[in-house]
Amino acid sequence: MIKLTIWNEYEHEKVNPKVAAIYPQGIHQALAEGLAAQPFEIRTATLDQSEHGLTEEVLNNTDVLIWWGHKAHGKVEDDIVNCVHERVMKGMGLIVLHSGHFSKIFKMLMGTSCDLRWREAGEKERLWVVNPAHPITEGLGSYFELEQEEMYGEHFDIPAPDELVLLSWFEGGEVFRSGCTYHRGQGKIFYFRPGHETYPTYYNQDVLQVIANGVKWAAPVRTARPVYGKSEPLETISAKSLTVIG
Amino acid sequence: MIKLTIWNEYEHEKVNPKVAAIYPQGIHQALAEGLAAQPFEIRTATLDQSEHGLTEEVLNNTDVLIWWGHKAHGKVEDDIVNCVHERVMKGMGLIVLHSGHFSKIFKMLMGTSCDLRWREAGEKERLWVVNPAHPITEGLGSYFELEQEEMYGEHFDIPAPDELVLLSWFEGGEVFRSGCTYHRGQGKIFYFRPGHETYPTYYNQDVLQVIANGVKWAAPVRTARPVYGKSEPLETISAKSLTVIG
Amino acid sequence: MIKLTIWNEYEHEKVNPKVAAIYPQGIHQALAEGLAAQPFEIRTATLDQSEHGLTEEVLNNTDVLIWWGHKAHGKVEDDIVNCVHERVMKGMGLIVLHSGHFSKIFKMLMGTSCDLRWREAGEKERLWVVNPAHPITEGLGSYFELEQEEMYGEHFDIPAPDELVLLSWFEGGEVFRSGCTYHRGQGKIFYFRPGHETYPTYYNQDVLQVIANGVKWAAPVRTARPVYGKSEPLETISAKSLTVIG
Amino acid sequence: MIKLTIWNEYEHEKVNPKVAAIYPQGIHQALAEGLAAQPFEIRTATLDQSEHGLTEEVLNNTDVLIWWGHKAHGKVEDDIVNCVHERVMKGMGLIVLHSGHFSKIFKMLMGTSCDLRWREAGEKERLWVVNPAHPITEGLGSYFELEQEEMYGEHFDIPAPDELVLLSWFEGGEVFRSGCTYHRGQGKIFYFRPGHETYPTYYNQDVLQVIANGVKWAAPVRTARPVYGKSEPLETISAKSLTVIG
Repeated sequence: MIKLTIWNEYEHEKVNPKVAAIYPQGIHQALAEGLAAQPFEIRTATLDQSEHGLTEEVLNNTDVLIWWGHKAHGKVEDDIVNCVHERVMKGMGLIVLHSGHFSKIFKMLMGTSCDLRWREAGEKERLWVVNPAHPITEGLGSYFELEQEEMYGEHFDIPAPDELVLLSWFEGGEVFRSGCTYHRGQGKIFYFRPGHETYPTYYNQDVLQVIANGVKWAAPVRTARPVYGKSEPLETISAKSLTVIG
Repeated sequence: MIKLTIWNEYEHEKVNPKVAAIYPQGIHQALAEGLAAQPFEIRTATLDQSEHGLTEEVLNNTDVLIWWGHKAHGKVEDDIVNCVHERVMKGMGLIVLHSGHFSKIFKMLMGTSCDLRWREAGEKERLWVVNPAHPITEGLGSYFELEQEEMYGEHFDIPAPDELVLLSWFEGGEVFRSGCTYHRGQGKIFYFRPGHETYPTYYNQDVLQVIANGVKWAAPVRTARPVYGKSEPLETISAKSLTVIG
Repeated sequence: MIKLTIWNEYEHEKVNPKVAAIYPQGIHQALAEGLAAQPFEIRTATLDQSEHGLTEEVLNNTDVLIWWGHKAHGKVEDDIVNCVHERVMKGMGLIVLHSGHFSKIFKMLMGTSCDLRWREAGEKERLWVVNPAHPITEGLGSYFELEQEEMYGEHFDIPAPDELVLLSWFEGGEVFRSGCTYHRGQGKIFYFRPGHETYPTYYNQDVLQVIANGVKWAAPVRTARPVYGKSEPLETISAKSLTVIG
Repeated sequence: MIKLTIWNEYEHEKVNPKVAAIYPQGIHQALAEGLAAQPFEIRTATLDQSEHGLTEEVLNNTDVLIWWGHKAHGKVEDDIVNCVHERVMKGMGLIVLHSGHFSKIFKMLMGTSCDLRWREAGEKERLWVVNPAHPITEGLGSYFELEQEEMYGEHFDIPAPDELVLLSWFEGGEVFRSGCTYHRGQGKIFYFRPGHETYPTYYNQDVLQVIANGVKWAAPVRTARPVYGKSEPLETISAKSLTVIG
């Protein structure tokens, strides 16, 4: 069982009736229900909770963290962001969804502006599999479609992904690297583009499949924590060297 | 259960008493025994069998193929190599060990000379984990050692690996990219350096751990076979375009 | 001055009046004229010449080779392909254009099927820059358009490129990795998608800019040829080792 | 002419007689002299200058910035670090040397801890070329040696480099990824390991060659600044879409 925590800023749903109509219990609950059949032990957390629901205890009991945020990135406390970052360095997986591209944690992990083009026009998006050997594509066909989504277009200012898995085509003429994997420290990160709050994207079965695959891919492995800092030599260093520096 | 086929050219063991003393049943049997506790359904195949033991039926029932060859690369029939290549394109995993760097199948998949420096001096090798987030490093510490191995040194003439997992240090002064992953078609390939026939390398528990991890990582995913060739448009193409080409 | 050889199979132009009308002297001449202002010393070569115009002398005096082929891939002699491959290993740059994705030399270098989706419908292609730090994008804007082109769509069965530079959007609903770089041996390879023979693509200034940038990027560097094969140790190997193997 | 600014924290040289004996005018001056024959317009800057010598005017007139820091990373003002970061995003090249691995700017760009193993024992380092097609290796042989250096060992906690160029072997038994390239935004970054302040490393001709190659590689290209933010569609979006969202 993978211990999955789904974090959602949970703001649009409270103030925008259109969003509330689609996600009456919040995006986090829709995701929790959509992933309920998976071998995941799921909990949720939101911005308005104490420590945003991401206490040390929660983070230490999280194998993979899903992150959805949009309008309240600035309200996320830096201390919590630093704790999440440290957990990723130590092996926690992180799935960053859609507008999470501008979250503090994603920008900190990427080191770039993470900027992009965007447009809300309810247009069609078609996501193409470009790495059909990758476990994140398990169960997918050559492509899948979302009848209506917000457009995100290149240039997407991210480091070249370690693996590029999905590419989006948009009706209005743009393309986007929509499924990107990264290793950072001992953690694995998967950025997945779809999921604007005004469309029922997180009820789409292909979208849920990709997220479930991403969680499985990002789960930690039990590799020893690397040893850093001052190290004794493992081999004899020649007397000549020692003399010269003596 | 992953269906694993272990292929060995099985020539040194028959003619060199030193090798026979280490691997009396052949390298393939030593590997099969070393991996017996894993959730693998294991069979072996050797050069001297009909179709080198790699019939269409065997290949179609193989999830992951391990390849050990050295002195008889030239005796492997091109037809069989082509069949193995086609299976990799369709998703079969491939673990290429040690001197398999010069096998027909590895060179065909890499597109380069796969040449390197080498030396048989029974020297020490130390393998360092450089990607502690990778599932192939599961269960390893910061490094592991082999008291005696053949040296392989850079430059190793391969494409830059998709992921570099292990680096070797050699007593005689060289380094080597010893654990390298690739996606090719729908198949996953893992090259793992150690395993000269005159040393008991395939009884080493860290080596067996890496090979077992590699098999699990390389197992196929159930992604749809991509559709290639002439394709009807998925969107309406403007009359202007059609007129111009009419 | 970079020594550039432009190779063209030069068959469509001789038998298809539509192609002849666009490229009366052949695609190779159109490219030579389009690149005439660059600091390149240009020669051309075609399939119908002796050794396809790619004699040992020509190859040894070529820094970068451009390759355009389509209907006659099978007529290219294996010996010549092997010579080109060897030159790439030793540092010659290679620019593979459009339908050259199915050429013997590209498939040999990639190790995969290089298959893709395609359609001739005269539709619009828009190429987006996804790596604006890369020298191959010098002088480009955010994107450029070709009013009419053949469609190539994903999945494109290539190794993940070392660097992905351009992505195409097609009117009919597909996307494609249209600018891909690779290092193979000491050679650099750039695959660039556009250039179907029935459209005047190679007169487009953005297309010519990308090709010129690609040639400059792919020019060889004067790094020493790596030394391969049996190597003496650079450090003293311990007596213990020598004893054990003695 | 590439406009090169060499930044040095310039602290060890003032307080440690051993360092002062090797670099009497500071590491920055030694580098400036060692690179004087290159087609670079060189200036230097140090921590103790106003705005650490990195005013907006200086940064705007810098194509490539070399960074050497060690004991005073914490004294570098965050505002200056942010300005350097913004310039890298817009195309300025950055060469990070040795202990700069722990500088604020490098950690911000990498998004990881950038931690490693280390030891000061005056031991031998041998740097192997692993990408002999790369312009940063121009003029090098298969390897070069430094008789005495500080050891840096794996695991080096960085993102997998876009290109791995050099690997180090250390006498005491470790290996290290010593030459690593990255694209971030429109900027290019090259991390190069050698250069502990108590050894005369920056007088070594191979080291200077690598740094000069790195500067040339990292120089900006004149690609248009990407356009980000809200974007009008480039193609007509279907009435159906517009109705649904109306």
